[in-house]
Amino acid sequence: MALKKKPVTGMKDILPREMEIRNYVMNMIRETYGTFGFSSIETPCVEHIENLCSKQGGENEKLIFKILKRGEKLKLEEAKEEADLVDSGLRYDLTVPLSRYYANHANELPAPFKALQMGNVWRADRPQRGRFRQFMQCDIDILGESTYLAEIELVLATTTLLGKLDFHNFTIRINDRKILKAMAKYSGFPEESFDTVFIILDKMDKIGLDGVAEELEKEGFAKESIDTYLGMFKEITNDADGVRLLGEKLGEVLEPGVAEGLQTIISTVDSVKTADFKMSFDPTLVRGMSYYTGPIFEIAMDEFGGSVGGGGRYDEMIGKFTGNQTCACGFSIGFERIVMLLLERGYEVPTKNGKKAYLIEKNMPAEKLPVILKQAEEERKTGTQINISIMKKNKKFQKEQMMSEGYTEFVEFFRDRM
Amino acid sequence: MALKKKPVTGMKDILPREMEIRNYVMNMIRETYGTFGFSSIETPCVEHIENLCSKQGGENEKLIFKILKRGEKLKLEEAKEEADLVDSGLRYDLTVPLSRYYANHANELPAPFKALQMGNVWRADRPQRGRFRQFMQCDIDILGESTYLAEIELVLATTTLLGKLDFHNFTIRINDRKILKAMAKYSGFPEESFDTVFIILDKMDKIGLDGVAEELEKEGFAKESIDTYLGMFKEITNDADGVRLLGEKLGEVLEPGVAEGLQTIISTVDSVKTADFKMSFDPTLVRGMSYYTGPIFEIAMDEFGGSVGGGGRYDEMIGKFTGNQTCACGFSIGFERIVMLLLERGYEVPTKNGKKAYLIEKNMPAEKLPVILKQAEEERKTGTQINISIMKKNKKFQKEQMMSEGYTEFVEFFRDRM
Repeated sequence: MALKKKPVTGMKDILPREMEIRNYVMNMIRETYGTFGFSSIETPCVEHIENLCSKQGGENEKLIFKILKRGEKLKLEEAKEEADLVDSGLRYDLTVPLSRYYANHANELPAPFKALQMGNVWRADRPQRGRFRQFMQCDIDILGESTYLAEIELVLATTTLLGKLDFHNFTIRINDRKILKAMAKYSGFPEESFDTVFIILDKMDKIGLDGVAEELEKEGFAKESIDTYLGMFKEITNDADGVRLLGEKLGEVLEPGVAEGLQTIISTVDSVKTADFKMSFDPTLVRGMSYYTGPIFEIAMDEFGGSVGGGGRYDEMIGKFTGNQTCACGFSIGFERIVMLLLERGYEVPTKNGKKAYLIEKNMPAEKLPVILKQAEEERKTGTQINISIMKKNKKFQKEQMMSEGYTEFVEFFRDRM
Repeated sequence: MALKKKPVTGMKDILPREMEIRNYVMNMIRETYGTFGFSSIETPCVEHIENLCSKQGGENEKLIFKILKRGEKLKLEEAKEEADLVDSGLRYDLTVPLSRYYANHANELPAPFKALQMGNVWRADRPQRGRFRQFMQCDIDILGESTYLAEIELVLATTTLLGKLDFHNFTIRINDRKILKAMAKYSGFPEESFDTVFIILDKMDKIGLDGVAEELEKEGFAKESIDTYLGMFKEITNDADGVRLLGEKLGEVLEPGVAEGLQTIISTVDSVKTADFKMSFDPTLVRGMSYYTGPIFEIAMDEFGGSVGGGGRYDEMIGKFTGNQTCACGFSIGFERIVMLLLERGYEVPTKNGKKAYLIEKNMPAEKLPVILKQAEEERKTGTQINISIMKKNKKFQKEQMMSEGYTEFVEFFRDRM
């Protein structure tokens, strides 16, 4: 029976060229975060359906690949709804599994715990170009560190990584959920409407200050509130000083220490950073997920025209799931976007000692093989990639094919010349 | 709502210590097979249910985690049987996906194509100690190489890998499906009973020569056949010479070139090998899967008391699925077993430049942080793992905890001494 040749809808096979870049980036991630004291962990790709449907995942909960019960547990005839048929599903993010992992293993782990997760997640999104239903997610989290040291180290580690991958001239946009709320409060928006206000504010990138004003008006907010609010955005500068002045203006509306904390993050990162990027205080930065409680950040890259990662502090979420209050701060890196950018750029993964092809004439006597293989062995020891194959009739085509795989040097072995 | 803390039945969370070893082994696999010209590829974890149920997977097809159809495609009320509910499943091996991948991409790939796959597979086996329902499989295949060069390179690459991972004194058991069949034919067993004979022969390890004789008798085979058959096993030596003598004895019953080929593999590997192992011709080696067509091998390790990998030539399978005849030879490495052996052995993954912990006194003034972080930066550049955290009240416990994570050196920073 012939197989269906294409992968399942919305998922993809990965060719050697892309795998080379993926593996390189993964190793670079492990190495870089490793030097910052992060440990790799892993959870199963399959999670309890109850955990996946715990309301933390927002819209993603509608996109779960659900797994059928097995054996006697599947009672098809009695099943009334989908929920009766399934007991688990593929994870749609690494945050739910991290919470479960931490609840399960906290006493075997150091505190604070610095976790690095790289793993596939699945979302049954409408298939569209460049977005796949299986993709690699890469999350870096510090659990149990309440000070801004967590934010500083996360930003330093992540930007060090991007620098090593040859990214330049990017921006870390930073804000604080508490500043976001204080600004809305200061402007006189009612607290129950904050979410509506932030959803509109989040469109600033696309519709500009005037567009935001217009949409806020449409929602029926007071003209005065809107003017005060947008007035602030106009006058704020994007540096640590901008945070300080905004903090002074907001006064008691803002929790003490918040502006100072953000200033510390920005100025410390600025004075220690090695990669080529700038820190930019951006009071319009919202970040979708409602679980953030403190500083939030996003990596903006002109080259990509969007975010290639982001994160923030979420001091309440883990406690909600585990019953033990645990402060936390994390970053999610857009692994697939980074790989895509490197692929498009024609990025060459550095190889240790080159790639070389050995071509052996057909019907080489058995007793001559060891000589060839020993020669290969010596070269392989130094890290050179030696690809040995039998010479084909169409040697020219064979060589061309190998050249497209990165083999630049050829060594030929003939029966009579050995 | 509290999460279910444990992973789903039969699957496991992986702690940092094990992850370190897993990542180390994975990198060593990629590096070693890389020097032999293998390229990494990847397929989605989810496969078409039709491909998974194509009868190639044998017993594994009963163990599939099946995925529910989504949206309008799921018609619960009309569903009469399981098959109506599902459209895909988690892969149970990497062989079916490799066949599909090759069918889909052959014209974008070099010929021969040397593929390295590392990825999770899922089997809803009865949960038991040390066996999990999600586990990493590692397959190395050469597609499109008809000569014994494929077998030789696979054995050399795999044993080089095991040597680098510090395994010694293991055995590569080798046989050929054609020899297996010729011996049964020579002894007079009827061809339609070969599978029954081989299933019994496969128990040789456990029940010995007499046990095999007994079971063959029970099945009603002729006394003469059994005597001839077992007589041969008694007289065969385990080296290349044993193959030669057996080949002479079998004469025309054995396809020409088969014994010579096996001799070439054994003697070439023996004269080129670098790792500490022996090649052992083992005419009792059967290997379960019926798709093998030529040489078959298995890695035997006393330390483990069983196989930690194996493989063989399967020249017909890919053609059956893709419609294009493609000779193939592959090896599957027992990744989980290797990791388990290294863990039990207390294997220490070599780190680049040590692990060091920085402890910062609480409430360190913000302006002093950059000094500490710059010092860390310098050390991190050399590959040292620097874990920075805030000093706790119980510093002694904190240090002990970090020591158990491999941090041997501590640097303390106090407010007044900076």
